[in-house]
Order: sequence, then structure tokens, then C-alpha cells
Amino acid sequence: MRMTCALLLTAWVASSAVAQTPASFADAASSDPVAMGWMVGAPPPSQRLIRFDDGSFLKFPQLRWSFSHWRELYPTVEVARGDGPVSPLPRSERTDLDAVTFVPLGGTQLMTWEQSLSANYTDGILVMHRGRVVYERYFGALRPEGMHIAHSVTKSFAGTIAAMLVAEGKLDPEAPVSRYLPELEHSGFGDATVRQVLDMTTGIKYSEKYADPDADVWRFARSASLVPRPAGYTGPATAYEFLATVAKEGEHGQAFVYKSPNTEVLGWLIRRVTGQRFEQVLSDRLWRPLGMEHDGYMQVDTSGAPLVSGGLNLRLRDLARFCDMMRQGGRFNGRQVVPAAVVADIAGGASPEDFVKAGYKTLPGWSYHNQWWVSHNDDGAYSARGVYGQACYVDPKAEMSIVRFASFPIATNAHLDPTSLPAYQALADYLKAHEHQAR
Amino acid sequence: MRMTCALLLTAWVASSAVAQTPASFADAASSDPVAMGWMVGAPPPSQRLIRFDDGSFLKFPQLRWSFSHWRELYPTVEVARGDGPVSPLPRSERTDLDAVTFVPLGGTQLMTWEQSLSANYTDGILVMHRGRVVYERYFGALRPEGMHIAHSVTKSFAGTIAAMLVAEGKLDPEAPVSRYLPELEHSGFGDATVRQVLDMTTGIKYSEKYADPDADVWRFARSASLVPRPAGYTGPATAYEFLATVAKEGEHGQAFVYKSPNTEVLGWLIRRVTGQRFEQVLSDRLWRPLGMEHDGYMQVDTSGAPLVSGGLNLRLRDLARFCDMMRQGGRFNGRQVVPAAVVADIAGGASPEDFVKAGYKTLPGWSYHNQWWVSHNDDGAYSARGVYGQACYVDPKAEMSIVRFASFPIATNAHLDPTSLPAYQALADYLKAHEHQAR
Repeated sequence: MRMTCALLLTAWVASSAVAQTPASFADAASSDPVAMGWMVGAPPPSQRLIRFDDGSFLKFPQLRWSFSHWRELYPTVEVARGDGPVSPLPRSERTDLDAVTFVPLGGTQLMTWEQSLSANYTDGILVMHRGRVVYERYFGALRPEGMHIAHSVTKSFAGTIAAMLVAEGKLDPEAPVSRYLPELEHSGFGDATVRQVLDMTTGIKYSEKYADPDADVWRFARSASLVPRPAGYTGPATAYEFLATVAKEGEHGQAFVYKSPNTEVLGWLIRRVTGQRFEQVLSDRLWRPLGMEHDGYMQVDTSGAPLVSGGLNLRLRDLARFCDMMRQGGRFNGRQVVPAAVVADIAGGASPEDFVKAGYKTLPGWSYHNQWWVSHNDDGAYSARGVYGQACYVDPKAEMSIVRFASFPIATNAHLDPTSLPAYQALADYLKAHEHQAR
Repeated sequence: MRMTCALLLTAWVASSAVAQTPASFADAASSDPVAMGWMVGAPPPSQRLIRFDDGSFLKFPQLRWSFSHWRELYPTVEVARGDGPVSPLPRSERTDLDAVTFVPLGGTQLMTWEQSLSANYTDGILVMHRGRVVYERYFGALRPEGMHIAHSVTKSFAGTIAAMLVAEGKLDPEAPVSRYLPELEHSGFGDATVRQVLDMTTGIKYSEKYADPDADVWRFARSASLVPRPAGYTGPATAYEFLATVAKEGEHGQAFVYKSPNTEVLGWLIRRVTGQRFEQVLSDRLWRPLGMEHDGYMQVDTSGAPLVSGGLNLRLRDLARFCDMMRQGGRFNGRQVVPAAVVADIAGGASPEDFVKAGYKTLPGWSYHNQWWVSHNDDGAYSARGVYGQACYVDPKAEMSIVRFASFPIATNAHLDPTSLPAYQALADYLKAHEHQAR
């Protein structure tokens, strides 16, 4: 149970700079969830059964099945696309991209783009260039019509919506959280500003000591129903009740520290100022205007609150619509979905000085702003990132966006970055240099 | 907890002939779930919070919200419609139907059709006549784009599919269950025939003594995760494991007795002979060919097995597509979805002599066949029925089908029938007598 919960929490706590020791895991081919026959049979034999209750759904390699079947494990709520037309995703697929090469971070040997996909346990990847799909592949348990947990990529959806509300004057970035959420007045969030929550520079006391069953990560996980509750549980009944118990540690605004409860506060702020359920806001502001091809869904806690820090599930092509909309300055399929100024603000990032203290070795010079990771590189690239390899990567200069779902054995993206970030850059450089080459 | 669970089980056990004492409940208008503000707020105030864990979701009037938000309470699996075109539902709405009158069973005062809707706590109702929508209304928490739990109407979807498999020679109705499911050989189902399971004439030992925590209904509910499990639970881990523990009582084939585990066996049989997940069969055989307008979904147990006896959720208009397809002899939108002979077999019913022993006072002369309730009346009407008022009612002679979602305070349909069945008959007679009258 302890190990199970640690894994689960790792998924939720998201990328940290703390190095994990890479273990020896089966490679992508030999851990293929379809080939392994998870959940096949009526009923599946016990050795092929994946369950929430016993924590098996987050063990490797079982998680390679779970990430494409999240709703079968948790209560969820629909993010409605409505009954409007699906926005087209024009295609100009090319086969030359597989052979693009790069040197992984810290390595010396060349690797091809194609090789990087299995190295990263990719479940699905889609590349758009100049608004057209140039590359799309599915592996493992994912199919084009399937959905995948986005983990912390969810945060960037919330951050984008919050930035829109800021631009509309509905959310004051300099206001203290307690102005909107008096319930948090006496918590560590009370005197933090909305901006500090958005950029994760709050100084909240939030322990991630997995060995301590009373650590905050455990308390949050139990309150949000991310893990089964022990008998006689008397802790916070919901995620929001937990947030009110979070204390302050140090000062706000001093440094970026990635702590997911900030995003739960953000989701709460969005609900409070809009007066709507979060999934309704997501539907009205993104799903419907983007012409998403399928409803998304979010996992919810026992009070019906969606897990804004990591509970969104959607089709890869719909993630591509969102991501390429950002690349196009907020415009998609002839419609301005997000104001250009909001996109520019996100792309501009925050202070790399605040960020460097967090010690992300694979992200030198980056910053975190509005729940997006900003590279400050020559291409002006920025990214939404979720544990186990979920990503939306925007490269404005290359007119390219990449979306990826994955099921890497280890949660932290520090293990994926070496074969991801330079691969994305190589693809960007290649696309800049080579004219379209139709298949 | 006891009361909560009893209510929950009542929902699942479905209509029984045992009379309940009607209590004094708030009427439809004053229990309107939207007006009551259930789950509104960020977070909802405690007195407006509805949860699974504490059983509040199945208390009245909370259940009026829950039935339209089932996926927020349970893990679920999608029943995919695919990406094909939506089949049209031609409309010729008429306003004269509201004034149609009838005398409720056991009553003397006339009631109008319109009055019957609130008397029955209707959430949504749609009438088709000669293949066109002539009447459609939504109340409470349901909207045309929303979904509603179908409860035991689910059984008729399973029964229809099983009857198709019988017609295709893939499922032998005279074979013992154990031929397909050796796991059940030593259970009470082992020597029952597929036909007896389909028509619920098995002689299984299945206690519904709610006061006894070891009663079979409790054991099933815990095994299928319909209720929270107590600490240290060591009973059957899944619904299927429970089925293997069901004993025999008396002889099979002697009488109809409505016991939902029969339908779980049926779902298992369907999975076994098709080699597919149940929701895949439902998608391939009904959702896609019917051109459903939206994916449906089913609640699942911890092994991913859908609750075939009552876990389907769908839009009212999609239930109408299914129901009117039956009315049209298995044909819908120019396509033969279910063989005409299968529909004729279902409509023909089984033995009213076997049925009468069950003592359903509101269903004189009826029978139960292939998981459908058959009236044997002059119109040849038959119906799918789920607790709390869910229904698909087919009247072939009147060329009419009616689908209804409801959230009646009491589970058993014996309380709804008096203001439903004569209302349906009155509408059928009226439609037979009056030419189309456009609004």
C-alpha cells in the first residue's frame, strides 16, 4: 500500500527536480499493454486484472493500460464539446521526420526521432506544422478515438483560462486569494496573490515526505480521493477542505516551487469568479470554440470537484487543437479562442531567476508562468507538461506544435527530457530548414 | 448506513411485487433538483452536497440530481457511438397530447397526460408516432444533451443482444449455463439453461433480507462495488465471483422470479461467446448501427465488468432510437439493426402462467421474455422497465413508442404504473383515433 500510494502521489505531485534512481524496467515493446493482454477476458485472469482498490493501476507496466482507461478507475465528469461541427485538422503527413536525428541530453550517440518514441514509451504523438498534421502515431493502448490522462498538462488548461479571466478583469492578479476565497483566509494561501498562485511562487508548507503518513501529500491524496481512504478516516472530506488546512512556510513571491495544491486553488478561484462548474468553463471557453472532436472528461473528488491539477482526459487530436491554437496566437479554425495578448503573456514567461532555485537540471533558463513551462530559448518555445511524459510543446518560430501522451515507467519528466527536448528542437530545426515534403 | 444501503439495493434489485408503504414525499415541483440547488457552489454548501460515500446520492430528493449525474459517482466505461453520422429523429410535434385523459389504475378521477408527468416525477419523456417525435419534454436535472441512468432498462439492451446471438446460433438457449461458463458449474446457475436465465425462471437462492448483512443482496452489492465496502472486506472481489457463490433453491423453469443476478450471468455469457467487452458489443450491435447521437456509458465494478443488470446511462433521444427501432420491427433509419424475427420473439413474450406467480398486481396477464416485460394486450405492447420510473414502452398497433426517464421517490414501479400504463394506453388510443395535428 505504501509503495502504491507513493507511486500514485508521484503521479499527482508531478515533475520534481529530485532525482529518482532509474530502475531496470521492461522496454516499450515488451511492456506493450495490448500485447500483455491487460483486462482481456471475461473476467480477465487475476494476473491480468488491473484495479484501483489494490493500487495495481499505477504499477508499471499496468499503468500503460490505465492511462488510456482512466474513467474506469475514477468517478468523472464530462467536458462537453456540444453538438457543433468538428474543426478540421488538415493533414500533410510526411515520412522524412522519422529519420531526423539528435543527441540526447547528456549523451554522445545520435538518436533518431523514431527511436525516441519508444525510448519515451510514447502512447501517441502528433506534430503540427503551419497548421497541418505532418506526423501522427499511436502505440500501446491508445488509439485515435481513445482518450488518455493528461496529468499536469491539465494545469495549463486551467492557467490559460485564468489568464483569460485576468485579461477580462474578472480576476485581479494582484489581489490576495482571500479576497475571492475567504475560506482560505487563515490558510497559507490567504495572503498569497492570485499571480503567485498562477506562477507557483507561493510559500506554502507542503511536505512530500512519503514515509510520513501524515505528510501533506498523503492528506491531500486522501481528501481528494486519489487513494483509498483508511477505515475510520476523519481527515478533510474534500480537496477544498484540505486546502484550508495548508499552512504558510516562509514568504510568498520568493521562488518558484512546483506544488500542485496551487492549481487546486486556481481551479477554485475560476469556479468562484465565474460562478460555474469548472468543466462548464472548460467546455464554454475551450472545448466548444475549438471545435473539439470529442467530449473530454475530468476525474472528480467526492464533492464533485474536478482535479484541476491533473485530472483531464482527452483525445490526442483534441490536445493538438488546443496546443496549435496557442501556437497560432490563440486563433484556431478562423476563430480567436484565446486573446492574442494572453498567449503572448504566457509565451513571455516569468522570472528564470525565480525558477533556477528549483534545480531542474533539464530545464536551464526556463521559467513557469500561468501554469506553463517557458523555455526562453531562441525559438520562444513553451510547454505544458505532465508526469510520465504528457506534453504540449509549442515552438512559435518553427510554426510547430507537438503533443504527446506517454506511459513512462517513472513519473518525473527529468527522465524523459533528455530524449524529448532535443528531439523537439531537432524537429523544429529540420522543419525550418526543409520545405514540405509530401508522402 | 443500513438505510442508505437498503435504498441503494432497492435501486438495483429493481421492481418487485412486494408492496412498499408510500411515504409522504415532496411533490415533483417542490423537489425539483435544479430549484433545490444541489451541487451548486464552489464548493456546494454541506446541505447541498451529494456524495456516494455517505449514501446521500440515493436519498430522496437527492436522487433526482444523481440520476442525471451517475458518472460523477461511479467509475464508468464508454459505449462508443463512433464517428459516423447521427441518425435523424424527424419531428412532428403536437400540443393536443397534453390534454389526453385517462383514469389511473385503482382510481376514479380523470387525469390528463400532462398531469401524469409530474405525478411520476418525470425527468424526460419522448413519444414517437409513426417514426416521428410527436412529444418531448424535460424536467428537473435532465436536458436533451444530458444523460440519465436507465437502471433495469439496461437489462432489455442485454436481452436483445442475447436474443440476436441466439438467432445467430452463437448462444444455444437450451444449453446449460455451465457449457459456456464452467466457472458457474457448481453454482445455482450451473444447470440452468440460457433460456431460463434470459426469462428469469431460474430457481436460485437469492435472499433479499435487508436486515441481514449477510444476505445475498448485500453480498452482491459489496462484490459489485454498488456500496462502499466495510473495512477488512474479504467477500467476493467482483460481481462474477459473487455469481459463483449463488446456490440453487428449488427447480429451474417453474416460475418467473425477478432476480437481477440472472442478468449479470447473461452479460457474462454475452462476453464469453463474443470474446469482447460488453460495452464493445453494445457499441457494435446497437450504438453504431442505430446512429446514436451521443456515446453512452456504463458503471463498472472493480474488475471493469459493467453492471449489465442496471448500469447503462444514455440520452433520452438515444433511448428513443433504440425503442422505436423495436417498434419498427428492428429497422431504423433504413437499416435492419435487429432481425425482425428477434423482435417478434421478444414481442411474443413468454408464459403468463409462469409470471402470475410473481404477484405483480399492476401487470395482470403479462410475461417476461428475453429481459422484456410483455403485456399480451390487444395492442401487443411490451416494455423495458427500470426502477424509479425508467421505461421504453412499445405499442406496435398504435405505431407508438414512449421513452421516459424519471426520479420517483420510491424504487418499485408498482407505484408508478397506476399513472403510467393507463396513460400510455390512452395516448395509444388517442393516436390511433386522431390524425396528425401539427402544432
